[in-house]
Parts: sequence; C-alpha cells; structure tokens
Amino acid sequence: MNETGLNHFDEAGNAVMVDVSGKTPTRREAVASGKIRVSREVMDAILAGTMQKGDVLGVARVAGIMAVKQTSALIPLCHPLPISKCSVDFETDREALTVTARCLVRVEGLTGVEMEALTGVSVALLTVYDMCKALDKRMEIGEIHLERKSGGKSGDFVA
Amino acid sequence: MNETGLNHFDEAGNAVMVDVSGKTPTRREAVASGKIRVSREVMDAILAGTMQKGDVLGVARVAGIMAVKQTSALIPLCHPLPISKCSVDFETDREALTVTARCLVRVEGLTGVEMEALTGVSVALLTVYDMCKALDKRMEIGEIHLERKSGGKSGDFVA
Amino acid sequence: MNETGLNHFDEAGNAVMVDVSGKTPTRREAVASGKIRVSREVMDAILAGTMQKGDVLGVARVAGIMAVKQTSALIPLCHPLPISKCSVDFETDREALTVTARCLVRVEGLTGVEMEALTGVSVALLTVYDMCKALDKRMEIGEIHLERKSGGKSGDFVA
Amino acid sequence: MNETGLNHFDEAGNAVMVDVSGKTPTRREAVASGKIRVSREVMDAILAGTMQKGDVLGVARVAGIMAVKQTSALIPLCHPLPISKCSVDFETDREALTVTARCLVRVEGLTGVEMEALTGVSVALLTVYDMCKALDKRMEIGEIHLERKSGGKSGDFVA
Amino acid sequence: MNETGLNHFDEAGNAVMVDVSGKTPTRREAVASGKIRVSREVMDAILAGTMQKGDVLGVARVAGIMAVKQTSALIPLCHPLPISKCSVDFETDREALTVTARCLVRVEGLTGVEMEALTGVSVALLTVYDMCKALDKRMEIGEIHLERKSGGKSGDFVA
Amino acid sequence: MNETGLNHFDEAGNAVMVDVSGKTPTRREAVASGKIRVSREVMDAILAGTMQKGDVLGVARVAGIMAVKQTSALIPLCHPLPISKCSVDFETDREALTVTARCLVRVEGLTGVEMEALTGVSVALLTVYDMCKALDKRMEIGEIHLERKSGGKSGDFVA
Repeated sequence: MNETGLNHFDEAGNAVMVDVSGKTPTRREAVASGKIRVSREVMDAILAGTMQKGDVLGVARVAGIMAVKQTSALIPLCHPLPISKCSVDFETDREALTVTARCLVRVEGLTGVEMEALTGVSVALLTVYDMCKALDKRMEIGEIHLERKSGGKSGDFVA
Repeated sequence: MNETGLNHFDEAGNAVMVDVSGKTPTRREAVASGKIRVSREVMDAILAGTMQKGDVLGVARVAGIMAVKQTSALIPLCHPLPISKCSVDFETDREALTVTARCLVRVEGLTGVEMEALTGVSVALLTVYDMCKALDKRMEIGEIHLERKSGGKSGDFVA
Repeated sequence: MNETGLNHFDEAGNAVMVDVSGKTPTRREAVASGKIRVSREVMDAILAGTMQKGDVLGVARVAGIMAVKQTSALIPLCHPLPISKCSVDFETDREALTVTARCLVRVEGLTGVEMEALTGVSVALLTVYDMCKALDKRMEIGEIHLERKSGGKSGDFVA
Repeated sequence: MNETGLNHFDEAGNAVMVDVSGKTPTRREAVASGKIRVSREVMDAILAGTMQKGDVLGVARVAGIMAVKQTSALIPLCHPLPISKCSVDFETDREALTVTARCLVRVEGLTGVEMEALTGVSVALLTVYDMCKALDKRMEIGEIHLERKSGGKSGDFVA
Repeated sequence: MNETGLNHFDEAGNAVMVDVSGKTPTRREAVASGKIRVSREVMDAILAGTMQKGDVLGVARVAGIMAVKQTSALIPLCHPLPISKCSVDFETDREALTVTARCLVRVEGLTGVEMEALTGVSVALLTVYDMCKALDKRMEIGEIHLERKSGGKSGDFVA
Repeated sequence: MNETGLNHFDEAGNAVMVDVSGKTPTRREAVASGKIRVSREVMDAILAGTMQKGDVLGVARVAGIMAVKQTSALIPLCHPLPISKCSVDFETDREALTVTARCLVRVEGLTGVEMEALTGVSVALLTVYDMCKALDKRMEIGEIHLERKSGGKSGDFVA
C-alpha cells in the first residue's frame, strides 16, 4: 500500500494485483443494487414482457449472472474467484418508473465479492437499456452501490 | 418487432439479435457519461494519484477502453462492431466529490454504438470503485446516460 | 489446399486459417438444428417453465445467441465475422420427448456462417442439459446438422 | 429449487446459479462422448491427416480442451471450476463412417464436471465439422451424452 | 497525437484508441517472427513429436492462430479487425537449437495487422515453452520482430 | 508422460492437460522477465510519458496484469489458477535503449505459475510495441525467460 491509502498501488505508485496469498479462505457474500429510470412506455413494455411477450428482465438476469463470472476479466486488478452462488433479481416500481436490479454473490475465497455484485448489477441494467433503447434513449442508470457484505478481515458492512 | 414496441423480440416474444443486414454502413458516434460519488478521502487519493503516485484514472481509462471492445460479449443481443475510435475521459469535481467518466465511440457500421459508450463508462467507474474501495465502500455510481449520438436511420440524438 | 481436399491445411499439412481476402462480401445465411432427447419428467418441467416458472428455453436461447458471437474464439480456424442477425428457436415435441433447437445466422461477409449456426444450436442444447440435469443425466443431444445455407461462392445448400 | 424440480430456478421461477458454498470439495470426474457421421471422402481425409498431412483430430483435440476451460463462460448458470485434468480422445470407425470424441475432465471442487466434458465433446466435434465442411456439408453430430461421472453428493453415474 | 509523437495519446497525455474512421479499407498484410532457444533434449523431443508422438508444434500453431484472433482483447489500444487469413509456421534449427515461429496475417481493413502477427508469434512460442518446460526451464524466447508489412498509409516496410 | 519426456502428451502422443489432482495446494511463485529494444526516439517518448504525458508503461502494466489472468485461455494445456498476487514492473535503460518488463505471480495452487509470469511479460512488451510503433517498427522483443520459481514438487529454480 502506498501513502495515499490505496492498496492497489505499490510504494512506487505502480498498479498491482494485491497479495491475498496469506489469507484464509472464508465464506464471503456481497449484495449490490442499482436502478434504471425509464419512461412510462418502456415500463409498460417491460411489465408486458414479464407476462411472456418479450422477457426483458429474464434476458437481463442471464446477462448479469454471466457478467459476474467475467468480473476479473473486466476489472484490471480484480482477483479471479470461484463463485459458489449468484443471483440477480429485479423490482419494478411503476409509479417511480424505475427498475431496481439486485445481485447477490457468494464465494468461499480469499477476497470479497463486492466487485462481482456491482458488475452483475451494472451489466443487468445495461442489458435493460439495450433492449428498450428503441423506445427511449433517455433512460438513466444510477444508484449503483454496495448494500452489504459479510466475511473477510474487514468484517461486515451494511450501507 | 412485437406488439410491445421492443425490437429485440420476435412476434412470439422470443429474444433475437435484430436484423441489420439491409442497412448501409455509415459513420456513427455516441458519447455517454456517468459519475461516481466518493468521499473526501478517496477524492484526495485520486487527485494525488494523477500526480503520479497511483494513477487510479489511468487504470480506469484502460479498463473502460478494453470493455468497449467486449460489449457484444457482455450484452446478449448486441451486434459485434469494428470500433474505429474510442476514448474515455474523466473530470474530477473536488467540491461535489464526484468523478465523471465520459466515453466516446465511433464506428463505420450497421448499428449504433450507444451500448459500447455506456459499457465503457460503466466499467471505467467500476474500476475506480475497485481501486478505492479499501478507503470507502459507500461510493455510489450514477447518472449513467447517453449524452448524444449521431448517424444511423434513427438520426441524431442529444440528451 | 492439400492433397486430401481439406482446405484448412497448407500443402505441408499445417493448419491455416484460409485466405478469404480476395472474396467479395455478400449476404450469407445459414440455418442449423439439433435435438435433445429428454425424459418425461424433464419435458414436463420444461413445458411448465415456459409457463413462467423457470424458463429453461429462455435461458438456453440467450446462451445460444451469445455463443454464436464467440464462434471464432471457440473453433480454431474460423474467421471472425460481423454477425448481422441471429435467432434461436425451440420446438418441443411432447410425444417424442425431444426439444429441437434451430439457429439462424445472417452476415454480410466474406465467409459463410454455418459454424456460427451449428455452435448456437450446440450451446443452446448444452444449456438445456445443464438446467435439467438435476432431474435426469441420461439426456442425449443429437441430429446437429446444417439445414440450409445461402450466399457465397459454393452456392446454396439444402439438407 | 422450485416446484418443477429444476434447481436452476428459485421459487419465483428466476434463473440462479445454485449455491454450492456449503459443499466440501471432493474429487469429481466425468466422461462424455459424442459422434460425427461423415462421408467416405471425409473419413479418408481424416485418416490421411492422422498420417501427418493435415491433422484434423489434433486440431479438434486442442479446441475441445480449450473449450472445457471456457464452459462457465458459455453455459449461463455453470460454476467456474479449477479443472485439474482434461483429455479428449477420438476413435474413427471407417466402416460406420463415424468419429467418436470422448472427453474426460477431473476436478477437486464443489460441483461436478459433466458440463465441461459435454462441452469439450461438442466443440471438438464442431471443429471436425469446420475442418471438413469443404468436402461435405451433410455431416451430422449426435449421440452426445454423459458416459459416467463419479464424486459429489449425487454419487456415481454410469450411462 | 501529442508532443512525444506517440499517437496512442491525446494532447492531454491520455491513452486513446486512435481514430481510423476516415481511412479506406485496403488489403494489409504483416509477417512477424521470433525464436525460442531450447536445450538439446527439448529439440530432440520436439523433432520426435513432429514424427507423430506428441506434436508440440501442431499445438503451438493452433494456439498462435487463436491468439491472433484475440489480439484486440489483449492489447489495450488495438482495434478489432476481421482477419481474412492467418498462418503460423515453424522452422527448427537443430544445430543452433532454436525453433523459429513465423506468423502471417492478412486483412481488408482500416489498420495494419502488425500486432496480430507479433501476438501470434509470441503465444505460439509461449506454448512451446509450456509444453517443454518439464524438460527444461532455461528456454529463452527472443528476436520477436516485424519482418515486413504491406498496405496502409504508412506504406510497405521490410525489416 | 510419453517416451519423449514431454508430459503434455499421453503415451499415444495425444496432447492432454496433465493431471494435477493428486497434488496438495502449496504457495508457488514465479518471476519472469524480458526486454524490448527501442530506438532513441522511442526511449525519449517513453521516458517523457512517465512524466505524465502519455504513460506507455502504465498502460503496458495493466495489459500485462490482465493477460496473466487470461493465461489458461491462451495457452492450450495450461491449468486455470486462482492467482493471488500479480505485479509487472519496468526498468528503462537509456544507454542500452531497452525497457525490461518483470512479472511476479503468486498462487496457492496445484501447479506453478511460470506460464502466467511469462505471458504477463510478453503481453506487456507487445503493448509497448503497439504504443510506440508509429515512431519505429524495428523494435525487437527478446530475452523472455523465467528468472526464478519457488514451490511445488519440482522445487525451487533460479536462472
């Protein structure tokens, strides 16, 4: 770790994948969530889809789960991890016109799975955008954050 | 396209990669942006890094550009595209405690590059989160949206 | 091409990615299909799933489409191609206890998309196997073949 | 697991990567096989190749082994696994005009390697198709099935 | 391009994927080569292998060709290109105890294929190392360079 | 292992991913290095870059670290490994006109990480080439070798 407190750099300021080899594998879990704000028209189409005519959220769920497994290939200094559980869920709020994606990831490993959960949320929401963008290009993705994590040296965290 | 207006489904409601084979390749460009809200401590570390002791934004830029090239592998119904230009830029606002990532993508192709630009922004911001999460896990990623696009049948768009 | 008539080898017998650079891009299309033979129990579960309690075929469709885009990364001597359309469809035969996957791929390119269509079918059926294997491990995948192709120097083909 | 008995869905019918985190890592092994039916001409070319003028099966073996390592990236709900052994073998039957591919995979892990073995077989046979399709497009891939597996809670299986 | 003459950075010094969108697609070709220096024992094993008992160079050729197709995923600022031909060849010099790998890549595209050819050579030689390292860990890879290129604005080049 | 002593082939001479399943996971580490020889002009540009106007080595470091994680996808018979630490460092020699890349990889695993370290070095140097090739195409990459390794049955090694 260097003087800035960022542990992804050595003392010369060079990026490194930090050493986790002294750690003991423990069960770690993380939950992240985020939202996409959509138009009324898109919301109606998404809700119609869940009734079996174009299942936007079903496709986005698969995309999110597959992205979780690609996290270490996307985020440069992330460790590869043998994910032992992953789920992506959605909540649609037809008043607020938002779709919330929530991703839970579990691992028996040496580092936490925060990045996996955040990546799963991001790609799930990007997939919603992709599938609905013919109707509306003004959708906005936001509030992507870690809700909670457990396990590991740094202990539990609840947002 | 099915009755919901979502063109990523056929009339039976099944997901498809839409046909772009009748289209003429034209120059298309898209710019997307998003933000990460960070703590004072993280902002100081990021700004220190740009002075050569741990370049968070330099690593995040590379991650964003590489993710742009993986967009069609991440987003299920996205077409593969021969990207001809890509850049990722950052603005740090030390009052508002935000880092804005902005991604521009250009292609001579059959479909637009909105998803590529949005994916570049998302992965760049996730990388900032990853590199700073030892200092703070309450960072939030948001306001990811398309700023503008040009080219293609649907014409120009400015947010 | 060497004396055996296999054009993926040079005259010394070494594997090569064959030269398509003299060719003109034309519209090419291929349709392939294959089947998975399942137990009565699996068939019931799959059919129940299409009624919205665990959509096996929806997940398998996404997997097939995404695999089509990875074909040149999986098949060593396959050319990368800018796919312009892709769909994967299923037919369930509850008497014969089979699920047929059919994949259509279209491109404006220098080589055909037979391998893309066959890969999409294979991965879609493997995904059905994966999702149903807790019920039955005796499922068998077969009859994977090219149904038809059009475009290109070698002309049209119908099985 | 939901009411259909498919454990890749939660009780709401949503696809999930199932939780294997309570399990103990044990040695697990799976063997799968499948066939490609070829023309006399293709069979002769393949057999000639094994005599060092265009080694179709050598290339297909490498493709199969590499695909085994990509299984969790291809099959949406498959867990990533640290494969500890993998082989792909072929048997050519010049009377029946078939090439059989057989893939063995071993792991010390939390889940079985059936999907890895089946994926290795599928991609090996697709590669044979690719390399011989200039001679014949009527080849058919079939009889892809699990021959046996050992290890894990569900015990041993022999087809 | 910035003041240093490096065109992969903008005037602020930030890495970018350079804009090739104004260019006309032309036929471009590149040939690169490199060597691995091996022990007598390894050389004998490699030569024995080419006589059909463990074909080191056959496996390395496949690895090199597949790596050529992954170049833009490995080299951060490299453009994705629709490769139209690729070959990897080897020369063994049993006096000098070297294996030379030579990779030719052709494309009809907007940028050159130097990086593809160099990447193909590098991964082919790394594969030779991997397959022979049980016999000798002192092998050295070197002399990786561009032999010639043709096509494109910068004209032809011969080393 | 076959008669040639190459353990990546079975007794029939077929390539296999060797069985490591009987082994005990131990801490293993490998350091590899290599060089790129550049022109005076390129050296000046690289050195200027490290002073914050186009950080060639910063980008190459990220590329090297990310490539380490892709090793088993690039090298056909390499086992996937849960890397626990990785760094890439550079030394510039302005007299000799060389940039040396050195990659350290650590794992708690069943096989060594020599190939990961060598792959990290190779891709880091290829990235330097890519970013400087507009100035000079005569750069040469060489002296890629294993410096040392520790852990595992075959014991420690120092070049």
